[in-house]
Amino acid sequence: MDFTPSAKTTEYRQRLIQFMRDHIEPNEANYHKECRRLNGSADWRTWQVPPLVHELKAKAKAQGLWNLFLPDDDLGAGLTTLEYAPLAEVMGHSLLAPEVFNCNAPDTGNMEVLYHFGTKQQQQQWLEPLLAGDIRSVFCMTEPDVASSDATNMQARIVADGDDVVISGRKWWSTGLGHPDAKFAIVMGLTDPDAAKHQRHSMVIVPLDTSGVIIERMLPAFGEYDAPYGHGEVLFDQVRVPKENVIGGLGDGFKIAQGRLGPGRIHHCMRALGAAEKALQLFMQRGQERIAFGRPLLQLGGNMERVADMRVAIDQARLLTFFAAWKIDQVGAMKALAEISAIKLAAPSVLQKVVDEAIQLYGGAGMSHDVPLTNLFAVARALRIADGPDAVHRATIAKVELNKYRERES
Amino acid sequence: MDFTPSAKTTEYRQRLIQFMRDHIEPNEANYHKECRRLNGSADWRTWQVPPLVHELKAKAKAQGLWNLFLPDDDLGAGLTTLEYAPLAEVMGHSLLAPEVFNCNAPDTGNMEVLYHFGTKQQQQQWLEPLLAGDIRSVFCMTEPDVASSDATNMQARIVADGDDVVISGRKWWSTGLGHPDAKFAIVMGLTDPDAAKHQRHSMVIVPLDTSGVIIERMLPAFGEYDAPYGHGEVLFDQVRVPKENVIGGLGDGFKIAQGRLGPGRIHHCMRALGAAEKALQLFMQRGQERIAFGRPLLQLGGNMERVADMRVAIDQARLLTFFAAWKIDQVGAMKALAEISAIKLAAPSVLQKVVDEAIQLYGGAGMSHDVPLTNLFAVARALRIADGPDAVHRATIAKVELNKYRERES
Amino acid sequence: MDFTPSAKTTEYRQRLIQFMRDHIEPNEANYHKECRRLNGSADWRTWQVPPLVHELKAKAKAQGLWNLFLPDDDLGAGLTTLEYAPLAEVMGHSLLAPEVFNCNAPDTGNMEVLYHFGTKQQQQQWLEPLLAGDIRSVFCMTEPDVASSDATNMQARIVADGDDVVISGRKWWSTGLGHPDAKFAIVMGLTDPDAAKHQRHSMVIVPLDTSGVIIERMLPAFGEYDAPYGHGEVLFDQVRVPKENVIGGLGDGFKIAQGRLGPGRIHHCMRALGAAEKALQLFMQRGQERIAFGRPLLQLGGNMERVADMRVAIDQARLLTFFAAWKIDQVGAMKALAEISAIKLAAPSVLQKVVDEAIQLYGGAGMSHDVPLTNLFAVARALRIADGPDAVHRATIAKVELNKYRERES
Amino acid sequence: MDFTPSAKTTEYRQRLIQFMRDHIEPNEANYHKECRRLNGSADWRTWQVPPLVHELKAKAKAQGLWNLFLPDDDLGAGLTTLEYAPLAEVMGHSLLAPEVFNCNAPDTGNMEVLYHFGTKQQQQQWLEPLLAGDIRSVFCMTEPDVASSDATNMQARIVADGDDVVISGRKWWSTGLGHPDAKFAIVMGLTDPDAAKHQRHSMVIVPLDTSGVIIERMLPAFGEYDAPYGHGEVLFDQVRVPKENVIGGLGDGFKIAQGRLGPGRIHHCMRALGAAEKALQLFMQRGQERIAFGRPLLQLGGNMERVADMRVAIDQARLLTFFAAWKIDQVGAMKALAEISAIKLAAPSVLQKVVDEAIQLYGGAGMSHDVPLTNLFAVARALRIADGPDAVHRATIAKVELNKYRERES
Repeated sequence: MDFTPSAKTTEYRQRLIQFMRDHIEPNEANYHKECRRLNGSADWRTWQVPPLVHELKAKAKAQGLWNLFLPDDDLGAGLTTLEYAPLAEVMGHSLLAPEVFNCNAPDTGNMEVLYHFGTKQQQQQWLEPLLAGDIRSVFCMTEPDVASSDATNMQARIVADGDDVVISGRKWWSTGLGHPDAKFAIVMGLTDPDAAKHQRHSMVIVPLDTSGVIIERMLPAFGEYDAPYGHGEVLFDQVRVPKENVIGGLGDGFKIAQGRLGPGRIHHCMRALGAAEKALQLFMQRGQERIAFGRPLLQLGGNMERVADMRVAIDQARLLTFFAAWKIDQVGAMKALAEISAIKLAAPSVLQKVVDEAIQLYGGAGMSHDVPLTNLFAVARALRIADGPDAVHRATIAKVELNKYRERES
Repeated sequence: MDFTPSAKTTEYRQRLIQFMRDHIEPNEANYHKECRRLNGSADWRTWQVPPLVHELKAKAKAQGLWNLFLPDDDLGAGLTTLEYAPLAEVMGHSLLAPEVFNCNAPDTGNMEVLYHFGTKQQQQQWLEPLLAGDIRSVFCMTEPDVASSDATNMQARIVADGDDVVISGRKWWSTGLGHPDAKFAIVMGLTDPDAAKHQRHSMVIVPLDTSGVIIERMLPAFGEYDAPYGHGEVLFDQVRVPKENVIGGLGDGFKIAQGRLGPGRIHHCMRALGAAEKALQLFMQRGQERIAFGRPLLQLGGNMERVADMRVAIDQARLLTFFAAWKIDQVGAMKALAEISAIKLAAPSVLQKVVDEAIQLYGGAGMSHDVPLTNLFAVARALRIADGPDAVHRATIAKVELNKYRERES
Repeated sequence: MDFTPSAKTTEYRQRLIQFMRDHIEPNEANYHKECRRLNGSADWRTWQVPPLVHELKAKAKAQGLWNLFLPDDDLGAGLTTLEYAPLAEVMGHSLLAPEVFNCNAPDTGNMEVLYHFGTKQQQQQWLEPLLAGDIRSVFCMTEPDVASSDATNMQARIVADGDDVVISGRKWWSTGLGHPDAKFAIVMGLTDPDAAKHQRHSMVIVPLDTSGVIIERMLPAFGEYDAPYGHGEVLFDQVRVPKENVIGGLGDGFKIAQGRLGPGRIHHCMRALGAAEKALQLFMQRGQERIAFGRPLLQLGGNMERVADMRVAIDQARLLTFFAAWKIDQVGAMKALAEISAIKLAAPSVLQKVVDEAIQLYGGAGMSHDVPLTNLFAVARALRIADGPDAVHRATIAKVELNKYRERES
Repeated sequence: MDFTPSAKTTEYRQRLIQFMRDHIEPNEANYHKECRRLNGSADWRTWQVPPLVHELKAKAKAQGLWNLFLPDDDLGAGLTTLEYAPLAEVMGHSLLAPEVFNCNAPDTGNMEVLYHFGTKQQQQQWLEPLLAGDIRSVFCMTEPDVASSDATNMQARIVADGDDVVISGRKWWSTGLGHPDAKFAIVMGLTDPDAAKHQRHSMVIVPLDTSGVIIERMLPAFGEYDAPYGHGEVLFDQVRVPKENVIGGLGDGFKIAQGRLGPGRIHHCMRALGAAEKALQLFMQRGQERIAFGRPLLQLGGNMERVADMRVAIDQARLLTFFAAWKIDQVGAMKALAEISAIKLAAPSVLQKVVDEAIQLYGGAGMSHDVPLTNLFAVARALRIADGPDAVHRATIAKVELNKYRERES
């Protein structure tokens, strides 16, 4: 056992931190203001990306801080899941950073899917511009009318029809759907309800300008539209795309989804922990600077105890996430289900708790846009639902535990 | 001891519930949509009140469901704090209801202040139109640059100058400041820093159209501007009003504030518990209607246990609030400080917890405007800060406990 | 609504408090020492009652502080459940007090059963000496081999045979079974497995010297045997008693149990809250007297916050218990099931939490017999299991809530 | 980063597990019964060690499963702190195991002290028989009359007098003091109150048969005397030993204590986590075997959720402990203070929580000696106090965090 990060990780981490200090931190408040100024309405068709984003992306790309998530020596940095994890944490300190390094969800997951399962042509047409940061993409999985926590509920259909497949159904919470550069979605749907449980679903690439793709609205998340990304509700009304757009084959959807989710959850959790570190830092800052009853807030009541409890909670969740990443690298995501569920349960809750404490210390300012805490809160709150709600992950962990118990007893 | 509500309470409660069913519930979703449609921007100067509000107010007034909070037989319904408490809970089921019954903060608190401490002229000019529901008002206490949890930090000044007083300073989180009908604010400020601790502050009536009153912005609370009310930041730049606008006398601010806060906190807490009941009802509804893994969500995992824990938490906080109301009625707010702090600590936390659970059960829908949960969450979160943050109330309770301990020992 | 205790309660309460101060508190540490000195072994057949107990009982009886729990003007003090509740709390400050006032479990419950359902002869033979404090009694319900949380699991049999009934089966956690003065047990068992669910069980009076009553051992509860009471495991090996010993009739067991449990749970919970007050008082005492890092422990870290949280938790649980007591008095225990379950869930947990905090503040002393905290902890821990574990009470509360929801919706 | 245990750890772990299965598990219940049978009284002078212990020790020694904690290739197994940690966890599954492998506190800590700081003569006289398992030892640090959480409070004196040092003072919670084989104590006391803060204390070896060593009583911990070990209160009444018995030099006490505590806390925490695994296993067992309402308890209410939460809590605390062990190995205990405090805070709380849940599932049986849960609870509860109470560790963590914050800001 050894907790020393790899030399590559250490080096990239230092460069990332430097980039964050030089380019992200000084611009972040302004970036959020610009986003709000440019995108004051809920109508995503008017949304614009602040020019700053393009400038920062160019800088990051020039420095080779680009596509670090991709486990490919040429296209990415050739990092394992575990090696990338500490870098995702650094990016998580800022809500702007992930896109700047071309490492933001859902594009990372989509790129991984195309990288591992895409045909040459799919890679050329969709992966390459994504890797270049020229376009954005969307992942359509969650549906409004059924409990998406139970994947077998999925109603959207992907049905073969001659040389085409026809997609019909409704999806929502499709993150990034409002982005001006979003060009396609990977849509998951039911192909064969009578097939074996894990061979019923398919994934297909749907260009957003295809006839029948009807974006109906963007959904607010705790009052925020997260422009210019947005979380969209979209109707697929008999949308027809060529069979070449199917990823893998018909029926491969579930298998691909599982592979997609493993590293993706590591990324989400590490970013959440980076955000928790940011929130703790804000807690410390307010706690030191603001005076009441003659003393810094930190020295009042149980605030120092809160610092200790938050520190321990963050550190524990981080180690657990490293461990899950290591296990994915060792045995693959399918054999690390309980470990992945464990971090999905632990990390967003830690973030929610820490942000809640920080809001409390900031008082009114914490509720407003003057500090980014409510944004981080919304991230935490959404993460406890997205990608499987806490209840589903608890069930997975407990089921694995019960199986272990039964094996031991038998 | 007797837990039977008074006959007056029972009767008003039934009528309120009927009114809620007939007029509020069927209109509420639409009301919120209208608020958003009319008030899409953060610029409060463009905000409008949906006409529905005026219609409902007229109906409520006609039925005598009006000013029930005011402990006056003629102007209100002559209810004690304890008698009114269950009615505030009913109103708390809806964010629209309190104004419809002319029982919304901060107007209720302001009306109480003017009722108890206002001069005839002040009452004629400001209390009467408030009681009539023709205008709205604002209470300016919290400041951005100091820890308002420690009242002695207050920087805004209210200084006598000839026949006038001059107000200077900055306030924020002044609720209702964005409302088109808001006509005046009651401002609290420091008059004499050298006076005894509780005689330093004053309260003064400042018409919002007075020269030097500069509303700078509305603050978002968890992403929501709560239009057409809003929470404002306002600069008082050497604002001059006649001495007749001082409430009580110079130096009476603290005393008036204490009287204002007692019943006001009962109202807030009861509304919070009404909101918690609403959220629990939504939890039950979703839990029964939504199916996953072949069963209603309620029957999965620990959800029924959550129902039990939420029920017990709400009921306990309600009884505690009734007890605090009773104590205010018996011995006055100044001798019920610990009890008032106890509910201020307990009730908003219960609401936050229940809403958080409800959001979790609703998944994505719970994060959006499709159900009113994030609004209720913002209410809960704000209440843990406004009117004294949790930390201050914990300190009050503990201090009283320590005094009791010392008396017992000596 | 009115939170003023009745005049009778107030008067008895003052007299009880005085008695506690004069006679219980000064003797309590010594009492526990004597119990340990006299009863050092796990063999209950050697156990003795410290003479002090008899002296104190005589004093209490002489002062009329005797059988206060019994709702009978002549035999008790004619108090309602609600009127008695605050008195039970006072007794809960001490583990010695309840017996001194002849108000200790399970005798109180047994006396109530005999009072309400016993025949003249049963009352003469068993109730009278119990009321006089001359004998003690036992209640045998829980069984070792089945989940007693589910009453339908009960295996012990009570079967009619000619003029007798025959009891066979095994019971444990029969409190008081080790007491030298314990003369009889009320035993619950299955009579007719084919009857309607609530008419299958019977209760019968079994003198402990009946042939076939085999006390096998006393069980330690968190390491303590609670001598000279004890919690026993007993085998009923074809025990034969006359039919006259059946309480009510065969098949009435469940009905009687329900009636027994309502007020009994109020008593348990109020004593638990009295114990919590005692533990909080010990917390305050240690917190004030013990110095570390130059300050009293109370002033360090979050200890004052803990005081506030404990105060609020105790007060909420107390009000909830008063409310449940009031409801029992108003509509009977059968219509107050959810309220009774709510306090059974809330009060022991509050006690456990407060005692745990007090132990922490006392450090090593808190773990030992030098302060009575581990004893109070064992009481709390046992109460979360006895008389229905938390899980069963949560289920009851949630079920009632679900029924309310369904009624409202239909 | 790599989570693979070393080959040595893996091999020892497998052998330990095998030994536990073959020799400890089958004997454990019987061992506890024997301990109780032989040692029924609180008088430690009558206590005996069950012969089984000697047999098992001989077996373990023969297999080379002996002194594994000691980082010496010859005397121990030459394992680093991190390499030993998983082995301590395995031993923690049983309260009997640590002594069998000669790895129980406080002997391990004392052996480390003598190994690192003892003179040749001290090692020959005291370390060798300890390493051989022929004698036992005691560590005297905590005092009854002062807050031992603040080391500067310590009152016991160790004063040079000619060729001797004289020890005077009172210690308690000296674990193992009741053991028939306990031959000496390492006593910490104040030598020079005017020296620099960390140079005031000394450690000295005091044979227990020295004149003036007066063992006054054994203390119960949650009702248990933990015979034949015991936790003692001892008076050092002008006890005189030769200066050769001082460890290191006068004034070195604090330095030695710090070194002692680092690895010792790893051992404690890992054993606590092993105990938590044991408790979780018991939870699973009861949850599967016991039926209520027609289903195994595990399938009722939130019990499967509890399994998930316990699994995540244990795994997180284990990883945190591994990390702290690694850091001790890398940079020494003095530079890993926050990490060591973090596990001291986290691990015992996890154990307490898990055991509490297991007790709840076992009901009455869980409160008794029929399952070892209350013993594990007492271990957890004591660990939150011993070796620095939670409050002190929270303070350390927060202080380190504050220092990090200040450095970052400056």
